[in-house]
Amino acid sequence: MTKNDSKTSTPGAPKTARGARTRAKILKAAEEAFGSMGYHQAGVSDITRLAGVAQGTFYTYFASKEDTLRELVRDMGQKLRAHLASEVKNASNRIEAEGLGLKAFLQYVAANPSLYRVLQEAQFVDETIYREYYEAFGRGYLRMLADATRKGEVRPGNDEVRIWALMGLSNFLGLRFALWEQDVPIDDIVASITDLLSHGLALDPKG
Amino acid sequence: MTKNDSKTSTPGAPKTARGARTRAKILKAAEEAFGSMGYHQAGVSDITRLAGVAQGTFYTYFASKEDTLRELVRDMGQKLRAHLASEVKNASNRIEAEGLGLKAFLQYVAANPSLYRVLQEAQFVDETIYREYYEAFGRGYLRMLADATRKGEVRPGNDEVRIWALMGLSNFLGLRFALWEQDVPIDDIVASITDLLSHGLALDPKG
Repeated sequence: MTKNDSKTSTPGAPKTARGARTRAKILKAAEEAFGSMGYHQAGVSDITRLAGVAQGTFYTYFASKEDTLRELVRDMGQKLRAHLASEVKNASNRIEAEGLGLKAFLQYVAANPSLYRVLQEAQFVDETIYREYYEAFGRGYLRMLADATRKGEVRPGNDEVRIWALMGLSNFLGLRFALWEQDVPIDDIVASITDLLSHGLALDPKG
Repeated sequence: MTKNDSKTSTPGAPKTARGARTRAKILKAAEEAFGSMGYHQAGVSDITRLAGVAQGTFYTYFASKEDTLRELVRDMGQKLRAHLASEVKNASNRIEAEGLGLKAFLQYVAANPSLYRVLQEAQFVDETIYREYYEAFGRGYLRMLADATRKGEVRPGNDEVRIWALMGLSNFLGLRFALWEQDVPIDDIVASITDLLSHGLALDPKG
């Protein structure tokens, strides 16, 4: 599949800072192409045109369009996780961190609408790409919940179940209130979810 | 686009019980075809073959493959909502209903795996199909939460936000624990979410 396998070894991580910039430029262009045209419509030539690089340069870093999608989803996930981690780092407890994280996530989705489209479409190229994206989030989340439980900030519980519930909650809030319509102020959404996580949904908890 | 527009008026709702059965058979076949082959690969001829009906019969009820997808998603939503409503009807309060509803949903997804695939793929055919599916769920959910709040079972809050959070939560739990892996007993998942909705995530709620 690679066009340059006679000239170079397997495409992969760049060895220089310049290489890293070129690779990042290609991923950015792929995000733009997949986000606006859709994965199936977009071709490698659209990506190279948007990135302003030659085909050969593309194949120095990526084996195929599918490889670019896989790396793009991984890259988007890493960037979003780093962004969220930095936004919540001053939180004094887990519930506050959840609120700050949700706020940062909603802002991020509004500013980066292609994230959802690329991610959703990746399911139909290779479901493991989509699954790995959430599993990578889940691993970090699992550690944070376990820490918070140990510190007595969070009720003990089945964290594997809780992290998927929390990821699903954010995912749909992002879809509805950041991507589709921005008709509810983000602070109201965050207040509502902070209340839910602080007290539950029940007015008078039993049991 | 319709093949029989010279012979009949717009395709649509069947007028007889036999017609309703034929239409249901076509939708079931479309679910099978889209679920196993994917929407883009599946053709009208695959649907008619699986349903055991002639092309002409297909076009009596549906204008196109896309029309079938739209009706299928609507039909899947109605069936699932009816199923959930019947499963939660004996619940004594909203939190219990949430638990019973989640249990029924997870069982339904495990038994009907094509629901997710068809729904996810519908986004790329026409996003309004996907959005309407969740908005239809949301309208019922909104009434139930408002009722429960009035009865004093649920904390007052922004229900528009809370229903999307709750739908997202169920959606990801279904994806992870019913569709991808069934490695956690459904009762454990339900217990975990019931605890979350009864008490929140915080051990010692503040504010």
